[in-house]
Amino acid sequence: MATMKAIHPHLTSITLASTNKLPKIQANQETAINIRPHRKTSNPANRLAESLSHLLHLHVGEPTQKSLQYSTNWNAHVEEKHNTPVMSPKEDISEKWPEIHGSYEWDNLLDPLHPWLRQEIKHNTPVMSPKEDISEKWTEIHGSYEWDNLLDPLHPWLRQEIVKYGEFAQATYDAFDFDSFSEYCGSCKYNRHRLFDKLGLDKHGYNVTKYIYAMSHINLPRWFERSHLGETWSKDSNSMGFVAVSDDEESSRIGRRDIVVAWRGTVAPSEWYEDFQRELEPIGHGEAKVEHGFLSLYKSKSESTRYNKCSASEQVMREVKRLLQFYKARGEEVSLTITGHSLGGALALVNAYEAATSLPGLHVNVISFGAPRVGNIAFRDELHQMGVKTLRVVVKQDLVPRMPGFIFNESLQRFDDITGTLDWVYTHVGAELKLDVRSSPYLKHRFNVLGFHMLETYLHLVDGFHSTASTIRSDAKRDIVLVNKACNMLVDELRIPHSWYQEANKGLVCNAHGRWVKPKRDSEDIPSPTSEEHDHVLGMMHENYGELEPLLCV
Amino acid sequence: MATMKAIHPHLTSITLASTNKLPKIQANQETAINIRPHRKTSNPANRLAESLSHLLHLHVGEPTQKSLQYSTNWNAHVEEKHNTPVMSPKEDISEKWPEIHGSYEWDNLLDPLHPWLRQEIKHNTPVMSPKEDISEKWTEIHGSYEWDNLLDPLHPWLRQEIVKYGEFAQATYDAFDFDSFSEYCGSCKYNRHRLFDKLGLDKHGYNVTKYIYAMSHINLPRWFERSHLGETWSKDSNSMGFVAVSDDEESSRIGRRDIVVAWRGTVAPSEWYEDFQRELEPIGHGEAKVEHGFLSLYKSKSESTRYNKCSASEQVMREVKRLLQFYKARGEEVSLTITGHSLGGALALVNAYEAATSLPGLHVNVISFGAPRVGNIAFRDELHQMGVKTLRVVVKQDLVPRMPGFIFNESLQRFDDITGTLDWVYTHVGAELKLDVRSSPYLKHRFNVLGFHMLETYLHLVDGFHSTASTIRSDAKRDIVLVNKACNMLVDELRIPHSWYQEANKGLVCNAHGRWVKPKRDSEDIPSPTSEEHDHVLGMMHENYGELEPLLCV
Repeated sequence: MATMKAIHPHLTSITLASTNKLPKIQANQETAINIRPHRKTSNPANRLAESLSHLLHLHVGEPTQKSLQYSTNWNAHVEEKHNTPVMSPKEDISEKWPEIHGSYEWDNLLDPLHPWLRQEIKHNTPVMSPKEDISEKWTEIHGSYEWDNLLDPLHPWLRQEIVKYGEFAQATYDAFDFDSFSEYCGSCKYNRHRLFDKLGLDKHGYNVTKYIYAMSHINLPRWFERSHLGETWSKDSNSMGFVAVSDDEESSRIGRRDIVVAWRGTVAPSEWYEDFQRELEPIGHGEAKVEHGFLSLYKSKSESTRYNKCSASEQVMREVKRLLQFYKARGEEVSLTITGHSLGGALALVNAYEAATSLPGLHVNVISFGAPRVGNIAFRDELHQMGVKTLRVVVKQDLVPRMPGFIFNESLQRFDDITGTLDWVYTHVGAELKLDVRSSPYLKHRFNVLGFHMLETYLHLVDGFHSTASTIRSDAKRDIVLVNKACNMLVDELRIPHSWYQEANKGLVCNAHGRWVKPKRDSEDIPSPTSEEHDHVLGMMHENYGELEPLLCV
Repeated sequence: MATMKAIHPHLTSITLASTNKLPKIQANQETAINIRPHRKTSNPANRLAESLSHLLHLHVGEPTQKSLQYSTNWNAHVEEKHNTPVMSPKEDISEKWPEIHGSYEWDNLLDPLHPWLRQEIKHNTPVMSPKEDISEKWTEIHGSYEWDNLLDPLHPWLRQEIVKYGEFAQATYDAFDFDSFSEYCGSCKYNRHRLFDKLGLDKHGYNVTKYIYAMSHINLPRWFERSHLGETWSKDSNSMGFVAVSDDEESSRIGRRDIVVAWRGTVAPSEWYEDFQRELEPIGHGEAKVEHGFLSLYKSKSESTRYNKCSASEQVMREVKRLLQFYKARGEEVSLTITGHSLGGALALVNAYEAATSLPGLHVNVISFGAPRVGNIAFRDELHQMGVKTLRVVVKQDLVPRMPGFIFNESLQRFDDITGTLDWVYTHVGAELKLDVRSSPYLKHRFNVLGFHMLETYLHLVDGFHSTASTIRSDAKRDIVLVNKACNMLVDELRIPHSWYQEANKGLVCNAHGRWVKPKRDSEDIPSPTSEEHDHVLGMMHENYGELEPLLCV
C-alpha cells in the first residue's frame, strides 16, 4: 500500500508563530492556510500576516510592506479589493471587514477558521489535484482486496477515483431535463458527444458511447419525469444513464480500459420510496431476490415504445459486451465500473449482478452513493461469490441507505421501523465508506432530509474525507459551492444562494418580436433512437477510438 | 373625443364561413384569428383553413395546396413543424396535435379558441401597437375631465398610455436587486442610463434622469430588502424609484414634455400590511392625513446615511423642479405623471400631494395600480381641489386596494373586517378603472392572493380591456407570457413555466479555475451617491437633452 501523505507539515510553524498573539491552531483541525513554507521571513507573526494577505488576494503580485501596516484607511482597502476575483463592497464597511483584513491580526478568525476567510482562499485554486499514475495499484483501487486498509484513512488515489465516478453519476442529474413544460422532459439535454464537455467533465478522459433509456411495466409515478404536454419525445421512457469508456491517456494512467455505467437516481428520496412495492422478486436462477420495482425498471420493454424496444438491461449489456469484445480483441485489460446515486445505486447493483453472471472473468466494481438496500442475503452472497466488488458510500445522516427498513410518513416528521411488518430480508452489500455531515464546517448540521441525501453533499464529504477520526481535510480541492446546487446545505456565512443551479428565465428567451418563447432544442440534442443507431452504423467515425465496430442494439 | 375603433370588421366573414362545419363564433367573444381580409379565396371554409394554417406558421412562405389536405401523415407534420418558431415535437404525436393542425377542421378549438392555438398565433406579432399622435387630446388623456367617457369602453390611446406608465412601474421591480446574498441587495441592478435599454423600455422614448432612494425612521421590516451580508452598498436605504422625462420625439407625439416619477412597491402584499401602524399623520397644513408608514418612507432622512441625506421627498421634488425649470424656460408645456404599484401607488399619491402643493399650476396626474387606501377624506378633497388627477387601476379580485379595511391573517385563509376597530377614515381618491381576472381566458381564476396583485397581471388585463361588458379583446398585443414572471397565473395549456423571471444560476458563474463565483457587478452599475452627483456636475453631457442645467441634490 502507498503510505498516506502527511498532512500540512508546515502547520507546526504556524502553531508556534501564533502562540503569542493568535489562538492555538491544532494540527487535527487542519487549518486551511496554505503557507508557502519555502519563504523565509524574519518574524513568524509577520510571515503569517503576509501569507494571509497574499492568500486573500489583496495583491496581484508579491505582498509589500504596505500591506503589513494594517491600514485603517478605507479607500486603500477598496482599491486593493478591486483586484480580487469575487464581489467587493464599494460603499459600506462592515465591522468584520477590517478584521478579515488583519486589523486584529486575525484574532478569533483562525481557530476555527472563519468560513468566509476560508472560502476566499480557495477561489483561485484549481478544482482538482493533479492526477497521479495509479496503474500499478489499479486492482486494489478497483476493490480486489475489498478496499482493506484503503478506507480509513482514505487513500488519496481511491478518493480521487470515487469522486470521478460520483461526478459521472452527478452528470445524469445535471444534464437531465426535469422541466415538465418541456416536450423533452425526461430526456438528456445534450447528445452524448457533448455531455461531458457541457458539464466540464472532459477532464476525466472518458467518452460516452451510449445513453440508456428505461421504462417500467409497474406504475412508478415518482420515479419518472413526465411532460405536462401532450406531444413529447417519449411517453414511456426516461433517460436513465449512460455507458462511457476511458480514452487512451486515462486508460494508461489507471492501468486498464475502464468501461463505466452511470445510472441516474431520483432527487426526492421521500417520494420515490412511496412507490416501493416492498416485494422481492427472483433475479437469476437461485435464491437471489431483489426489490421488484428496481427489477421492473431494469428489465421492462415494449415493442410499442420508441426507446424501450430493448430494456435498459439489454441496452447496457449489449453496449458493455460490444466494448469488451473490441478492447479484448486489442489485447487490453478491461474493467467495468458501475456507479449511481440513490435509486441509481440500486440499479447499479442489479446491473452488476447481470454483468457478473453473463460476463464471468470481467472485473466488476460498483461504487454507489446513498443507495438503499436492494435484495436479500442470497443476492449479496451471489454477488460476492461472483467477485463483484461493491463500495457503498453512505452519509451517516442520510435516510435512504436505511431503506427499506425505515419508512417515513408524508410530513417527514416521524419514522416507523417496519422491520416487523416487512418480512425483513433486505441487506446491504459490500464495503462501506461512511461519511458524516458533522465533519464539515461548511455544512449546516441541522436535519435536512433532502440535503443529507444529495449527491453533491456526498461528493463534498468524500473529497474532504481523511478518516473517521478527523474533520474534513483542509486541502480538499472540490468547489464547495456545488453543494448548494439543489439544496440549502451550506452555512450562510459562505454567502452561497441555495438551489442555485437554474436556467436563465427557465429557458425562455426574448425573440426578435420582443416576445418570450421557448426556443427549440438544438436539433443535434433532440433525442432520437434512429440517430443513436445511425451513430453506430457510421462506426462513430468522429470518436477517438477509431475503428471500434458498432454492434446494433435493436 | 375620438371614437372607439371598430373591433374586427372581418370577423363577420369567418362567422359566415363557419356555419356549416365549424361552431359559431360570436363577435363579442373576440376570436383572435387575424385573417388577412384582402385575400380572396373561393371557398370560405378553405379560406379559414388556409388562414389558420398560415397563422400557425406551418409554412415559411405562402400556404400551398398541400397544407389543405389535412394530411394524417406524421412525417409531413414533423417537417412542417420544423419551420415554426417555437419548440416542436419530434418523436411523439399527441392526440391533440392533428386536431390543432386541422384534422377535424378545428371543431371545438375555435369557440372558445383553444389557448394553445391562440398563443401560437401571437408569437410573431409585435408586442406594441403603432404609436399614434395623441398630442391634440393630451389633457383629456392626462385626466382633465376625470377620464369621463374614456374608461368604459376604454379609449385605446388612454389604454396605451396606462400600459406605458405601468411598464415604468414594473421596471422598478425588474431591475431591483432582491438577492439577499448580494452586497447590492436593495439597489437597482443597472445605472440609470442603461435601465430602459436593459429592460426593453427604450421604445417608450423616455430618459431616466434620477434614481430615488428611501429609508424610514420607523421600523418597516417587510418594506425593505436587506442583504444578509455585513458589508453592503447601504445599510439604510433602498432604491425606491426613478424620475424620467420624455424625449423630443415622444414629447411631440404626446403633446407636452412629460416628467414621470415611478415608485417601487412591494411584492408580497400580505407581508407589508403587517407593518402598517394603522395610524394617520397630518400631511400639509390642513386636515389632510395619511397613513404614517407611507409618510415615514417618503420623508425620512439622516445625515449618517450615504443615500438619504435627502429624503425621498426632497430628492424627487428637487429633480422635478429642476426639470420643470429647464423645460419651462424653453417655453414647453410640461406635465407630471406619477405612477406606482401597490405601496408604490400609495407613495405616488403622497408625492402628488406635495407636488401640487409646492408647484401650483403644474398638471399632475397619478396612475396607480393595485394601491391601498392612503389617507382620509380631507386628503382626498385637497388633492381634488388642487387639480391632481388620479386614475386608480384596480383588479376586482385583488385584496390590496381594499386595505386598510381588510386585514388578513398570516395563513391568508380568512379575513377580518376591521372597520370597527380602525376608526375607519381611509378613503380612495379619484377615478377607477376596474379590471376583472375572469375577463381573461389566459388566467387561472382560482383564488391567488399574490397573482391577483401582481403588476404584470394588471398590465395584461389593461392591455386586454375593452369594456366591463366584454371579455378581453383579442387584438391585445402585449406578451401574455410576462404574466407568469413571478407568479403562477397563466392557464397550464399555455405551457408557460411559473415564476420564470430568474437569473442563470442565481448570478453565479464558473471562473477560469472551474469554481463558481459571484462576479462583481459592473463598476458602472455599482450604486454611488458620488457618481450620481458627478453626473449632475458634468451636466449629463451624454444625455440627449443637451444643455440641461444640473441642480445638485445634496
